[in-house]
Order: sequence, then C-alpha cells, then structure tokens
Amino acid sequence: MSSPRFPLAVSLGDPAGIGPEIIAASYDRLRGAEGDCAPFFVAGGLEVLRAASLACGARCTIIPIAQPHEATEAFAAGLPVLAGLDAPYTPGQPDLTGAQLSRASLEWATLLTLQGDAAAVVTAPVAKAGLMETGFDFPGQTEFLAAACNLGPDDAVMMLAGPSLRTVPLTVHLALSQVPARLSEELITHKARIVAKALRRDFGLQQPRLAIAGLNPHAGERGQFGDEEARIIEPAIAALKAEGFDVIGPVPGDALFTPIMRGAYDAALCMYHDQALIPLKALEFDEGVNVTLGLPIIRTSPDHGTAFDIAGQGKADAGAMCAAIRMAGDMARARAAASVG
Amino acid sequence: MSSPRFPLAVSLGDPAGIGPEIIAASYDRLRGAEGDCAPFFVAGGLEVLRAASLACGARCTIIPIAQPHEATEAFAAGLPVLAGLDAPYTPGQPDLTGAQLSRASLEWATLLTLQGDAAAVVTAPVAKAGLMETGFDFPGQTEFLAAACNLGPDDAVMMLAGPSLRTVPLTVHLALSQVPARLSEELITHKARIVAKALRRDFGLQQPRLAIAGLNPHAGERGQFGDEEARIIEPAIAALKAEGFDVIGPVPGDALFTPIMRGAYDAALCMYHDQALIPLKALEFDEGVNVTLGLPIIRTSPDHGTAFDIAGQGKADAGAMCAAIRMAGDMARARAAASVG
Repeated sequence: MSSPRFPLAVSLGDPAGIGPEIIAASYDRLRGAEGDCAPFFVAGGLEVLRAASLACGARCTIIPIAQPHEATEAFAAGLPVLAGLDAPYTPGQPDLTGAQLSRASLEWATLLTLQGDAAAVVTAPVAKAGLMETGFDFPGQTEFLAAACNLGPDDAVMMLAGPSLRTVPLTVHLALSQVPARLSEELITHKARIVAKALRRDFGLQQPRLAIAGLNPHAGERGQFGDEEARIIEPAIAALKAEGFDVIGPVPGDALFTPIMRGAYDAALCMYHDQALIPLKALEFDEGVNVTLGLPIIRTSPDHGTAFDIAGQGKADAGAMCAAIRMAGDMARARAAASVG
Repeated sequence: MSSPRFPLAVSLGDPAGIGPEIIAASYDRLRGAEGDCAPFFVAGGLEVLRAASLACGARCTIIPIAQPHEATEAFAAGLPVLAGLDAPYTPGQPDLTGAQLSRASLEWATLLTLQGDAAAVVTAPVAKAGLMETGFDFPGQTEFLAAACNLGPDDAVMMLAGPSLRTVPLTVHLALSQVPARLSEELITHKARIVAKALRRDFGLQQPRLAIAGLNPHAGERGQFGDEEARIIEPAIAALKAEGFDVIGPVPGDALFTPIMRGAYDAALCMYHDQALIPLKALEFDEGVNVTLGLPIIRTSPDHGTAFDIAGQGKADAGAMCAAIRMAGDMARARAAASVG
C-alpha cells in the first residue's frame, strides 16, 4: 500500500512525560526496519525533542520544518518538527509552561488535520491536572477533539485496538454504581452505528462483525441476576439487526474474550470501562492503541499516560506509540482507498 | 513429591453432559504421560463411564471398586469407579434420572472426603436446572459444599486458578447494580483472610501476596468516579496490613492484569464476577480451575459447564478437568506436608 498523500501530525504530549522520547524512538523504529510507514511530523517542541533524543539514546536527527507538507520529503533524513512552539526540557518535573506547550501542540496538530494539511492526528500523553491549570476545559483529549469537530460527547467513541482485539467501552469515566442507569437502547445503537461505520471506512471491513457484552454475570442468566439484558441490551441488538448490522449478543462478559470468541467479531462493545480495558490490557498491553471513532478526522493515541516517574531515563517502551502511528497511517490509507473506490 | 495417602474422589457430573468423557480422557492423560498424578476414583456411574469412554475414544479400562482405598492399587490398571450408583448413558439428553445420579455422585464424593476416605473432591459439571428438579436446594455445588461442611455462604470462597493467574470474585452471582451495596470492609477482610490462609496451607506459599482491585474505573481516580475505594476498600486494605498481611491496592481493574502486574501477587481479589472471570478466561481459558477455599476439605472443579450440545461426540476438551484433578492432588500433598511440618 502506498503512503497517504499527506503526512500524519503528532502532538508532543506533556514535555515532562515520556511523550517526546517515545516519539523519537518511534521514528527510529518505523523509519528503519519498516520502510512503508506513513511519514509524520511533530507539532512543535523542537528543543524538547532534541534534548529528549539525546537523553534517551534515540539516533534520529531532528529536522525543523515550516509547513506540514515539507514533512513528506524531510522524513527520510530525520524526524520533522514544525518550528515555532517550544519550552525547556525538564523530564519528570511537570510545570505550567510544559502543560501550555502540550496544549498548544494538541490544538495545532488537530487544527492542521481538520484543515486537511495532515492525514491524521496522533496524540502523545498529556497530564489532565496540568491541562486544567491552563484553562483547558475538557476531561481529556478525546472530549477536546469531539468539541473541536463540533460534535457532542456521545458522538466521539473510544475504541481500544490491539493486534488481535478491539474493544469499545460504551460508558467510560463513570462510577460503576452509575453505569446501569446510564445504559440505554439509544446509547448502544448510536455508538454501535458509529463503530460499524468507522470499521468499514477506516479499517477496510466491509461487513463488520460486532459483539455486544452483557452487563451482569452470565449476561444475567435469564433475568436471575439483573434485567438490563432483557430491558436494554437485547432490544438494542434486535434494532441493530433490523438495520442490517452483523451483531451477536448479549455475550456474557467472561465468555467474550476467550480465544475462540475473539475470532468471532471485529469489535466488542462493552458496557463499562473495565469490561473493555481489562481484556485489552491483559492481552495486548504493549500495543494498545486508543482510537477515536465518529470524528471527521482520524485520531489515534497510545493507551498509556505520561509516566512522569520514568521520563528522560530511556526506560519508556515506545511500542504503543509506534502502534498508534502505524494504525493512523493504515487508517488514512484505508479511508483514502474507500473514498476513491 | 509422593502421592497423598488417600485417593481423590471425582464426582461424575451430569451423565448427559461432557463430565463422563472428560473424566475418562483425564485418566488417559494423567495416568500416561505424567506418572506422578495422585490416584483418583469416580463416585458411581460405572456404565455411564464405560459407554462414554467407548463413544469418545478413551483408551482406559473402567475398573469397579467397592471401597475408596482400593483405588490406589487399581489406578495403575484403569479408572477406578465405585460401584453402586448408575443410570443409562444418554449424552446430550439431560433428564431427571441423570440429574439424580449427578446429585448422588456429588453427595457421595463429598461425604467420602469429609470422612477422610478421599484426600479431596473434584466435581465434574452439573446442570443447575436439573438438580433443582431433584429437590437440590442450593444455587450451585459450591453452596452445597459449604452447607455440607456446616459453613455459611460467605465462608466458602471461590478462587479461579490457572497456571499464571489466580483470581477471587468477592461477590459472585449478583446483578452488577447490586454489587456496590454488597461490598463492605468486613466482606473484603473476611474473604482475604480465608484466601491467605488457604494459599499458605494448600499452595505452599508462606507469605501470600494479595492484590485487591478497585471497583471504579482507575480505582475512582481519587474520588472522581465513585467513593467505594476510599470508603470501603482502602480501610479494608489498611486493616489487613495491620494484621500483617502482604496486600496491595486498590489497583485499578485494568492495570491489575497486565503482564508485569501479574507477577506482583499470588491472588487478585476482585469486586465482582466479571472483573475476576474476564482476565482468567481470556488468559487461561483451557486450564481454569475453580477452587473452593475456606472449607475443611479440598475441592476443585473445571471452570466450565456441562456442554450438553457437544456431549458424547469426543469433542470436549479435557484440559480444565485434568488441571482440576492435578491441582487437587497438589493441594492434598501441600496440606499433608504442612500438617507434618
């Protein structure tokens, strides 16, 4: 497959976290052994990236560019970084200046992608507490991206994707006691449609197979432990089937992730955070990618945090960042092919 | 290690399910390649086992015995079966006669173990609906065993154990909406003590390391999504530490089962069914053993059901049954060693 026409935009993340070093390490890995990676650039942080590369033993040259389109050519020689935004490199010591840089880089990378100057945005980890101090008014990057795309929070759907498993938590950062009341037939069908559409457009799956989890143990065992399956989940599945979707469920949570079941669907829609995240992190910890579905743009992110405690020491594993960049490139190619085909 | 002094007692399970064939297949596997398995016998079902072996291609001879102690010598020549209880073999077609046999076999194997004529009881899968028709007044075999041992339901603790992971659901067959109200400091500390004691006595772990899960996403992220961690789980952990237990937590559910974390504890105590069962079945599906802790006797069971739909066809995987028998033997040896030492 050829590269997408435009490079990918990568946001720096918090400069005191592991973002800069895993971006540089990802360049080394992706540029080297696997030549067909889509070119990417970082939105700002030139000096941070130079210092982080040096501190952590990355081999790549950092190449300043003035415009996104320059990244495509520059990529062969080094890691292209859009000049103009920077801060001192103080690994492990988050501060307001760094949080401001992380926010500006996120906003810049997003804007360039929305404008069509980049094929996708890949976001490195930020610190929520720091961002809030800058006046950033969103619980996380995903909610920011939804708002930047002029969408409501339920229109941006988080999917966690590893090499052999994709899971979608239908509710996310919510106390477990509030999950049952938050579930509705509408929530399930709305998000399932978004997931199916995205799997078709961005993952090349013509008839995506969805599996929908039960909420209760044994999916309630015919109403013995909870009625949400009968009241909410089964009607949602029936409605989706009537619309022509390939859907199975409600599948008991503990049956959904056995090796055999994992081969029976393209994405598992889960009722709450841990139902989706436990199997993903147990099975594919190092390669979990957080993908935001339902946006007009493509967005991926490594499924881990800033890890301030190990930043700047060359200890951080760049596996998830590599996987996020590679997945963004693959999605951009699939979307380009779908729009041509 | 030498075999325990007494053989293990295996209950037949529902004769229309896969129980009989996986018992026969387990004999073939355990008797053959791995000579040091503890001898075991089946409590009843002589003709069922003969027919199931024939139908499913087991190679073993079925040997009738009159008393448990005869099993130790008979085991080298074939699968010893206590004569006296039987029914016709009708795989895939559960009926009252079969349910009655499964109940009688369970009661017999339990009684022999309580009397000291067997070193442990290993229970093959039964059908709850069928058992209820016989007047069996327990939600499952575990509750029956607790009552047979004159214990309350919270004194028998279910642990799921695979080769690299042990998990304990602190609440089990309960609607998810009722889980938060069911949790208490007392429930957690009571069951944690039972687990730690059993890991010492039956698993040879002198200072067992327990990890306790959070209930909410990110273990509540400092009270942002739910307060059960601060109100219930943290005080329970503090109390257990004050008693000298080696305990960590509350660990966010999705962080608890990553490869690195799994090396940091001997058992993970989980707040609800799927939190414990999802990772176990995702990671160790074929070898999951259900162990009942807190009983005066040793009891294990394969972590799957009767699978009526494939019974009698030679398709059933005996892996979990083998693992349950092997674990019961190991536990009996450890307990014997602990009582001597």
